[in-house]
Amino acid sequence: MTDRFPTTTPSFSPGCPDYVQRVRDSFARQAFMTALGARVADVAPGAVDLELPFRADLTQQNGFLHAGVTAALADSAAGYAAYSLMPPDSDVLSIEFKHNLLSPAVGSLFRAHGRVLRAGRQIVVVQASVVAALDDDTEKTVALMQATMMQVRRDG
Amino acid sequence: MTDRFPTTTPSFSPGCPDYVQRVRDSFARQAFMTALGARVADVAPGAVDLELPFRADLTQQNGFLHAGVTAALADSAAGYAAYSLMPPDSDVLSIEFKHNLLSPAVGSLFRAHGRVLRAGRQIVVVQASVVAALDDDTEKTVALMQATMMQVRRDG
Amino acid sequence: MTDRFPTTTPSFSPGCPDYVQRVRDSFARQAFMTALGARVADVAPGAVDLELPFRADLTQQNGFLHAGVTAALADSAAGYAAYSLMPPDSDVLSIEFKHNLLSPAVGSLFRAHGRVLRAGRQIVVVQASVVAALDDDTEKTVALMQATMMQVRRDG
Amino acid sequence: MTDRFPTTTPSFSPGCPDYVQRVRDSFARQAFMTALGARVADVAPGAVDLELPFRADLTQQNGFLHAGVTAALADSAAGYAAYSLMPPDSDVLSIEFKHNLLSPAVGSLFRAHGRVLRAGRQIVVVQASVVAALDDDTEKTVALMQATMMQVRRDG
Repeated sequence: MTDRFPTTTPSFSPGCPDYVQRVRDSFARQAFMTALGARVADVAPGAVDLELPFRADLTQQNGFLHAGVTAALADSAAGYAAYSLMPPDSDVLSIEFKHNLLSPAVGSLFRAHGRVLRAGRQIVVVQASVVAALDDDTEKTVALMQATMMQVRRDG
Repeated sequence: MTDRFPTTTPSFSPGCPDYVQRVRDSFARQAFMTALGARVADVAPGAVDLELPFRADLTQQNGFLHAGVTAALADSAAGYAAYSLMPPDSDVLSIEFKHNLLSPAVGSLFRAHGRVLRAGRQIVVVQASVVAALDDDTEKTVALMQATMMQVRRDG
Repeated sequence: MTDRFPTTTPSFSPGCPDYVQRVRDSFARQAFMTALGARVADVAPGAVDLELPFRADLTQQNGFLHAGVTAALADSAAGYAAYSLMPPDSDVLSIEFKHNLLSPAVGSLFRAHGRVLRAGRQIVVVQASVVAALDDDTEKTVALMQATMMQVRRDG
Repeated sequence: MTDRFPTTTPSFSPGCPDYVQRVRDSFARQAFMTALGARVADVAPGAVDLELPFRADLTQQNGFLHAGVTAALADSAAGYAAYSLMPPDSDVLSIEFKHNLLSPAVGSLFRAHGRVLRAGRQIVVVQASVVAALDDDTEKTVALMQATMMQVRRDG
């Protein structure tokens, strides 16, 4: 028994040659990501990492990052991981996501890792984790997401 | 067959006499709700309604409210619906939530309705809906949430 | 504030005139429903009720109905609620579901109520509840489901 | 960027020395697992693998394994992965799970892999995958689960 999560490892081809730029361009149009202070850290086929520095105005009643913030970050990482596999005339839509909060979201920097697990013609299933970088240089997974994305034809 | 959602209708007692003020006080400490421009609309035992006016900086790449925003609003409505039933020395923690996006979140005002369906000693299950008020005075449900909240002892 | 779950109430048209028979015929082909002893109780547009008498071989380690059984029943109720709205040349596919266990599933008879909340062209969002009929003639909601169904073209 | 799912890798200690036997004993009391024909394949701290041979009476309308069967198998694998970490006087309870169906569940043998991702004092978060062994000796992940389990004190 291996200790890693045993899915058959998927390997993906990008949806078009300029998939990295398409992800970055669409992310730049997500006004809410800008408002949160999030940025794209890395893009590969079926895999997108986002980063968000801690800010006091993003917290819940105990000073931890609000679950809506970790959900927003994980949803965007998951959505763009799916989008990286889609053809040029398409857009990505979040159908639904499930978000587990594992630990209080404390830390100076948060990274969301979106990883596609299954890419169908229309439905794309993605997992995402949100990892907190702590001040002592350790890391902690603070949240997990299992999400369903849909490929839709871009209007216009 | 009735057309309404047939759960045995729960009726709840508040966790303490000043439950309305406790919900409002805790909500006021959620810096992220303030940053989003959300406010408490109504509080009853096991039921909390929040409101959020549309703002362009809360959108995703197509100009709709970001799924992270509807999730944040629904999570807070669900969490405070649970919190209204909890005793004075306790706090509420989001364990997990599942969020379905039903329609593009367009509209001038969004209302999140959190309703407790089952309140155990520690685990509280809550449903929430996010309804958009449109310019033509109609309403549309744009998102649904099924969430698990936990009662924890307040520190200090 | 009303105490019922405030979604804008949907009203649905059946996908074809013989939708009741189509639901019953497809249900009859679900060998697993037969193996569990489940039956169709009621069918309306966007709403399907199933019934399952308790059986000792459907239990988990404490003698309650196994969560996989309540999930199977709720999934089929949700899927057929969606299917009742679909045109003749289509089939229904479960994309995903989320299942909350509210109370130990004890009782002599279990009813699953599937109710469509949003029917898009392809994606249908459904809620389901599983209610236990107890020996003292009372009822108890033991589980909830929020599910995503998809309309697919039938092969052949 | 690594291609594996980047959570900080957890390493777990068993809840008691005879954790393997405790998992096997409790599994043997799940009458529904026996009815399905499922068996324990492997047990390690925080990790349980179950197996289920295909059977025609476990199918949905198209001859695939019913989603309730993959959910039951994944729920039991997830629950026992959590249980392997719990002390002798405790029992495990499924709070909720979220199940994504990735591909039609066809194959001769199905394996469910439950892996704990976060073990709190009471709440344990587990992921599970269901993998189908096909006749041509290849494998395919057909379903995923993200589940919340709870440690409860055993009665009596």
